[in-house]
Amino acid sequence: MVRISEIEVEPEHLEEYKAILTEEAAASVNLEPGVISIFPMYQKENPTAVRILEIYASRGAYESHLQTPHFQKYKATTLEMVRKLKLIDMDAIDAKTMATIFQKMARPPR
Amino acid sequence: MVRISEIEVEPEHLEEYKAILTEEAAASVNLEPGVISIFPMYQKENPTAVRILEIYASRGAYESHLQTPHFQKYKATTLEMVRKLKLIDMDAIDAKTMATIFQKMARPPR
Repeated sequence: MVRISEIEVEPEHLEEYKAILTEEAAASVNLEPGVISIFPMYQKENPTAVRILEIYASRGAYESHLQTPHFQKYKATTLEMVRKLKLIDMDAIDAKTMATIFQKMARPPR
Repeated sequence: MVRISEIEVEPEHLEEYKAILTEEAAASVNLEPGVISIFPMYQKENPTAVRILEIYASRGAYESHLQTPHFQKYKATTLEMVRKLKLIDMDAIDAKTMATIFQKMARPPR
């Protein structure tokens, strides 16, 4: 299950939002085997435009992610900081290349 | 160097475009050590909206990618198929979690 979340953050809460999201992403990826990726980025020219590449091993892994204390805390504490949220379900075009990419990501050249 | 390319494909060329992009992504990732990721996705509810997560080891790796025969071929053959193209430079919020994600991506649970 692949998704891109598009999030517009209130500028005055940006640093706080990023700190909370960083903590939540780290907890999810470290504690939940079914959370393959919660990879937060922001647009260089528009830092309040946050994009998250989310990859879950299954629908079930996603559902159980929603129940975790770290996600619930993230959701509750950032609710007022988020101006807009769009969850966009994606399909990967090519599963074979995806596997190669993941292998390379684990061992990027220095 | 992290980027999200947002591409709107002409509907009548979608399948052809996806085939060419798949070939180009595979060649880039397999042949170029500095191309960490060219990960093509499309929106489930709007399949002509293609998004590519691109990660290059360095600016130089990106510049040399642009000179490869597989990229040049992709560019030339898809020029007429692409309605809109936006290259959006991104920053990863958290490098440490990114490393963990890449490790997990290489060994996703079955």
